[in-house]
Amino acid sequence: MPKTSMRRPKFWRDSFFGAATTMTTKSSIATFLDDLASERPTPGGGGAAAVCGAIGAALVSMVAKLTIGKKNYEAVWEDLEIVNTEAEALRAELTRAIEEDVVAFNSVMGAYALPRATDEEKAKRTAAIQGALKDATLAPLRAVKACFGVIRLSASVAEKGNLNVISDAGVAVLAANAGLRSAALNVFINAKAIKDRDFAEKQIAEVNALTAQAADMAESVYQAVRTKIGS
Amino acid sequence: MPKTSMRRPKFWRDSFFGAATTMTTKSSIATFLDDLASERPTPGGGGAAAVCGAIGAALVSMVAKLTIGKKNYEAVWEDLEIVNTEAEALRAELTRAIEEDVVAFNSVMGAYALPRATDEEKAKRTAAIQGALKDATLAPLRAVKACFGVIRLSASVAEKGNLNVISDAGVAVLAANAGLRSAALNVFINAKAIKDRDFAEKQIAEVNALTAQAADMAESVYQAVRTKIGS
Repeated sequence: MPKTSMRRPKFWRDSFFGAATTMTTKSSIATFLDDLASERPTPGGGGAAAVCGAIGAALVSMVAKLTIGKKNYEAVWEDLEIVNTEAEALRAELTRAIEEDVVAFNSVMGAYALPRATDEEKAKRTAAIQGALKDATLAPLRAVKACFGVIRLSASVAEKGNLNVISDAGVAVLAANAGLRSAALNVFINAKAIKDRDFAEKQIAEVNALTAQAADMAESVYQAVRTKIGS
Repeated sequence: MPKTSMRRPKFWRDSFFGAATTMTTKSSIATFLDDLASERPTPGGGGAAAVCGAIGAALVSMVAKLTIGKKNYEAVWEDLEIVNTEAEALRAELTRAIEEDVVAFNSVMGAYALPRATDEEKAKRTAAIQGALKDATLAPLRAVKACFGVIRLSASVAEKGNLNVISDAGVAVLAANAGLRSAALNVFINAKAIKDRDFAEKQIAEVNALTAQAADMAESVYQAVRTKIGS
């Protein structure tokens, strides 16, 4: 979720002067950065996490494409076709996640804005908030999983990819792991406010397991790339 | 440098079907990702590194702005004004670095394309290549330093920033550190091909020192943020 601890929604209700109204992915890089730096609630850390993951996926594709069809790499062409197809799918998913973060944020804010004059309204509002918080936990969780997928693919391109562009496999894994850990923060912060603790703890445990595995994989890919470039 | 080991420039001379002709920072996020994933040499890992660093700087600014003027944070308003000003400067620098990466790449490719029929031409070409490689090493080194600055500022906002947006301080440090380590790979790869080993080793040593320091700082900021959000 962008720029908010869902624990303190009042903060945003008081200073909520407009989430992004246009599609973030259609913004220029410069405008996206300006919007990110602004006081507006979206895009925020959740969108930034998805962008990092998508950058990783894009670089996996690039290394794969620059290996397929190249001499001396015939043995891995087929493997890297599969890697590229998977990376394109993950990039599409992470690009969607940039927008989903905005939607999830707006949905939580919308729920908090519901009337609460009567007991019935209060109950309805609480249910809506809790539902929106679950969605807002599952959205970054999907981003965590997609980034994890990108890290796996980075390992493949770091191992099999064209040596001329092997440093880009290293950049891919770093960006994807930053995306994963950033999305993880958004899972934690939203899960915190969920009353259904079984649900919340399940998501948190999954994220913790993926984060730990990802850290090891990312470090090993980065070191493998450094060895290949002789640094 | 994007998508290349300068050690193997022939790779790019053979498959050089056009670097980015438009300003990368004016591309939409979606187009930037498409270009990154393409077989074109730019944008590549160097540009991606700078984008990650700029995302970190933008999020530092955001957290600072959402703390300044807010009740209960009066004691840090002034500090965070300074942090914000520095973050804006680093973001501008890293945004420029996205384009500088393209320029540096084109300059190296241009040098390799110089004629080499006579001994005089050969000598001229070698000197041009070596000069371009030095520039192509210093460009990502500047990005490394700028990302290091962003990590420092992330520590400030993680410590002093508004708790409602503290997770974004965590995203900031992760993005900046991914940018730093990614830019470092580009320093290593270009420094490798430089004949002036004193120059090259000096840059490599500086990057190694900054990378090690950054890793410790980034981990400690990330853990501080996790503690604050209670995860």
